[in-house]
Amino acid sequence: MKENKIPYKIYLEENEMPKAWLNIKAFMKEKPDPMINPATGKPVVKEDLLPVFCEACVDQELNVTDKFIEIPQDVQDFYKMYRPSPLVRAYNLEKLLDTPAEIYYKFEGTNTSGSHKLNSSIPQAYFAKQQGLTSLTTETGAGQWGTALSMACGFYGLDLNVYMVKVSAEQKPYRKAVMETYGAKVIPSPSETTEVGKKILAENPGTGGSLGCAISEAVEKAVTSENCRYALGSVLDHVLLHQSVIGLETKAAMDKYGIKPDTIIGCIGGGSNFGGLIAPFMADKIEGKNNIDFIAVEPASCPSLTRGRYAYDFGDTGKITPMMKMYTLGNGFIPPANHAGGLRYHGMSSIISKLYHDGYFKAISYVQTDVFEAATMFARCEGYLPAPESSHAIRAAIDEAKKCKETGEKKVILFGLTGTGYFDLSAYMAYNSGTMTDYVPTDEDLEKGFATIPEIK
Amino acid sequence: MKENKIPYKIYLEENEMPKAWLNIKAFMKEKPDPMINPATGKPVVKEDLLPVFCEACVDQELNVTDKFIEIPQDVQDFYKMYRPSPLVRAYNLEKLLDTPAEIYYKFEGTNTSGSHKLNSSIPQAYFAKQQGLTSLTTETGAGQWGTALSMACGFYGLDLNVYMVKVSAEQKPYRKAVMETYGAKVIPSPSETTEVGKKILAENPGTGGSLGCAISEAVEKAVTSENCRYALGSVLDHVLLHQSVIGLETKAAMDKYGIKPDTIIGCIGGGSNFGGLIAPFMADKIEGKNNIDFIAVEPASCPSLTRGRYAYDFGDTGKITPMMKMYTLGNGFIPPANHAGGLRYHGMSSIISKLYHDGYFKAISYVQTDVFEAATMFARCEGYLPAPESSHAIRAAIDEAKKCKETGEKKVILFGLTGTGYFDLSAYMAYNSGTMTDYVPTDEDLEKGFATIPEIK
Repeated sequence: MKENKIPYKIYLEENEMPKAWLNIKAFMKEKPDPMINPATGKPVVKEDLLPVFCEACVDQELNVTDKFIEIPQDVQDFYKMYRPSPLVRAYNLEKLLDTPAEIYYKFEGTNTSGSHKLNSSIPQAYFAKQQGLTSLTTETGAGQWGTALSMACGFYGLDLNVYMVKVSAEQKPYRKAVMETYGAKVIPSPSETTEVGKKILAENPGTGGSLGCAISEAVEKAVTSENCRYALGSVLDHVLLHQSVIGLETKAAMDKYGIKPDTIIGCIGGGSNFGGLIAPFMADKIEGKNNIDFIAVEPASCPSLTRGRYAYDFGDTGKITPMMKMYTLGNGFIPPANHAGGLRYHGMSSIISKLYHDGYFKAISYVQTDVFEAATMFARCEGYLPAPESSHAIRAAIDEAKKCKETGEKKVILFGLTGTGYFDLSAYMAYNSGTMTDYVPTDEDLEKGFATIPEIK
Repeated sequence: MKENKIPYKIYLEENEMPKAWLNIKAFMKEKPDPMINPATGKPVVKEDLLPVFCEACVDQELNVTDKFIEIPQDVQDFYKMYRPSPLVRAYNLEKLLDTPAEIYYKFEGTNTSGSHKLNSSIPQAYFAKQQGLTSLTTETGAGQWGTALSMACGFYGLDLNVYMVKVSAEQKPYRKAVMETYGAKVIPSPSETTEVGKKILAENPGTGGSLGCAISEAVEKAVTSENCRYALGSVLDHVLLHQSVIGLETKAAMDKYGIKPDTIIGCIGGGSNFGGLIAPFMADKIEGKNNIDFIAVEPASCPSLTRGRYAYDFGDTGKITPMMKMYTLGNGFIPPANHAGGLRYHGMSSIISKLYHDGYFKAISYVQTDVFEAATMFARCEGYLPAPESSHAIRAAIDEAKKCKETGEKKVILFGLTGTGYFDLSAYMAYNSGTMTDYVPTDEDLEKGFATIPEIK
């Protein structure tokens, strides 16, 4: 079906929704380097991961051959509660910018978790339930992943312990309240409930915590508890797999109306949104079927792709996870608390890192005041109040559309609007009042982080 | 088109969206009693209202003959930014309740204002712009209307002064931040910026304000400013007219799938949501085309329909508005601050009051802990975190579905889910921690309020 007039919002019908996730690794000519078990120095095998993650997720994590992996019917049904998400034509933004470009965004913020994170929390909770587990643990920074996993665990009747970065728990009591409404237990991290937490507290009594610390605690709690596993909301291959639903829906909606993107833009922290959004388009690019420009946008305060090193590093501060080959600022790198929202992780998805290393896309960064300027402009003309994370992509899309105005090019620009900013209003208040500051690490700051990257024999 | 399987969410196509609002007054056999100008004691005429409201809204307010009024194309286009809203089949709630009933809800919370209020703020701002006005004033309690009007004024480039009930402004700094992001000026009420505000402050220096006070200030500010008018988010006939888009979309979606509701439930404060949701169904009922049971649900703490008097009263505490014939608790009635969210208004839409008086629907009330119990149950199985206001309707829908389980009736129940609870998390926290209390006014409390109802010769 083709129509001349593109509606403001394209919703797929239920029967047009994806029935299988896309496994980008199976398309890649060179596969990402494998995880390393730090104890043995050898690539991890299934058995290494089973104490930490539920089995279905481990299988997906290690699967480099199947291009598509079926979405269980139960998960498809849960997806129908809040999906398909709309693909929106940004008519008003185009008008405001007076650009010849067409701008589209895939909006993942219509569910209560406020972001795309629910796409992976549902299958992770579902597989845990299927395996007979009774509880999960996780960490959360900005709170979106914790909320998403709380919703999924509430639905499937699993207990959940969320280690929430302490400074975030204090700044965002309402995020905590949402998770508790869904039945989760929220523990500010670092805490006294784990050995690694006690150790971190002993070394840094006043610390506000970090995502790396919280991951360490959540993993320890999972492996030391009965019938319990750990669930992660980004970085890992199976998370990117689940998030491919974003890109698959987007592509189906675009194909339905004959829309061909020239540029695809996503914000990037651990890589789950960007990886999910680009999945089917990147698969086609790898197979030579398109020549789309992909742009990953990260905060200048935590620039793992644009200024990080491509090296094996731990996923957490406590160094208890496997080591992954990725762009990293060093597991000891912690951006200052003045930076709003997510995108604060020191590392990056191995898949995304490999694709970046092999030149499949480019990365850029912005300081947060530039990002909030774009967020405010977007909110006023498109109506939605965007999350700070998503607003990195908005900034880049606006700048690309402005270039089109200069050159006269009628590019089709697609970006991912990962979520809403309802729990980030203290950051908006800072921006509105002019008190928001920017942080860009000096080379010296970065060197301190790089010094924490382990040496690999 | 009929299909056997009802999807989780029914979205209309853009070309199926309403092109005209439904004016319920034109269908009513007996019209609501007219507003009275307190200065003359006579029914208000157009000229009385022109200094307060923009002209198009005044014309709509006084129109009792046209059954349908065209939605301007610009407003239709703005509606397309966030509408059609989904009509959701509550499969998971049905399953949880193990009821033979079918439950549907029309979800109005997918826009940033977080509620249905945007449906009326857009046309009100649009008509103001068309008239050449440069600014609007309004009041807000829970903050949904203020946010909605901020969004509309931000879009059309109008200045906006929002008088926000002081206790609400203090409890909800983030609501204020959203409005400011959209460019509005937010003034805690009562304030020193108006004569009526100064008077109220002189009489009650420590007052946290009320919706009635804030209305007085906003009206005074509008009539004393250049090129400025006042905009109200509920109660008035033209607001109910605009909100008919909710019911019209719902009916179109139901007709498309051959769904016939037996029971329609809405929460009620001033009447804008309930009036909008029931509009086309009530029009049919008046014309003898259906026999639907309509249920309005109000908080036990502010029970204007279930325990109020049907009398002429002022719309505001400062007694500067016209008098309306309505169910009222008295313009001096202020529910205590422990009550969460909206639905705190002393009066009720004249249209709704007349329909109620003539026996077209029934009204019930719940205490807020019962409402939050339903809200939490709903959030866990349906995913959306509901606004406290909307949760009154959820409570009633659950209770109706439970009755069906007892009787075996396969009723089709529709309710309005007016918005999300992202700015009501302090109330959720109180509920989660068991510290939430209920308030039900004693007869003596009510008598004090009734004593403030003016005597009409």
